[in-house]
Amino acid sequence: MSITHLGLVAGAITSAAAVPQVVRTYRTRQARDISIWQPVLLNIGMVLWLVYGFLIGDTPLIVANTFSIACYSLLIAMKILYKDDDKSTSCV
Amino acid sequence: MSITHLGLVAGAITSAAAVPQVVRTYRTRQARDISIWQPVLLNIGMVLWLVYGFLIGDTPLIVANTFSIACYSLLIAMKILYKDDDKSTSCV
Repeated sequence: MSITHLGLVAGAITSAAAVPQVVRTYRTRQARDISIWQPVLLNIGMVLWLVYGFLIGDTPLIVANTFSIACYSLLIAMKILYKDDDKSTSCV
Repeated sequence: MSITHLGLVAGAITSAAAVPQVVRTYRTRQARDISIWQPVLLNIGMVLWLVYGFLIGDTPLIVANTFSIACYSLLIAMKILYKDDDKSTSCV
């Protein structure tokens, strides 16, 4: 496995990490325990990683960060949309 | 600003992103809405990024990933420790 392949696998896994959180939040419509600063800071940082990736011509960095930015943008949208309301029915 | 500095700033911000989530989870003792797969996959991927960073001799990647792995390990520990119990007192 070449170094670039290792970077691609690393990028694929860290990018994929956003997916279960996005899916869970979409399914449960609950984002109470999620700090909005996590996806916001991640997106700011990943835009810079993306620029860095372009500047050093690093494909894994470019691909991974583009995908992650899309996922965390969705998470930010859901956090705002679902607010911090508790939608569980355990008290009813 | 050199390219390495840009990478360092990007790494600092994406690494810092873990902090508000760790702090919020520690304060509220609630991790119900967090998918454990996010920090688990992030850690697996970031160990590979770390190896990748060492192989290409990239300081921003090495520093950023070491810090993030520590933060997300704390988050995983708290997710397991606090389980998915609802500790809110809104129903009492």
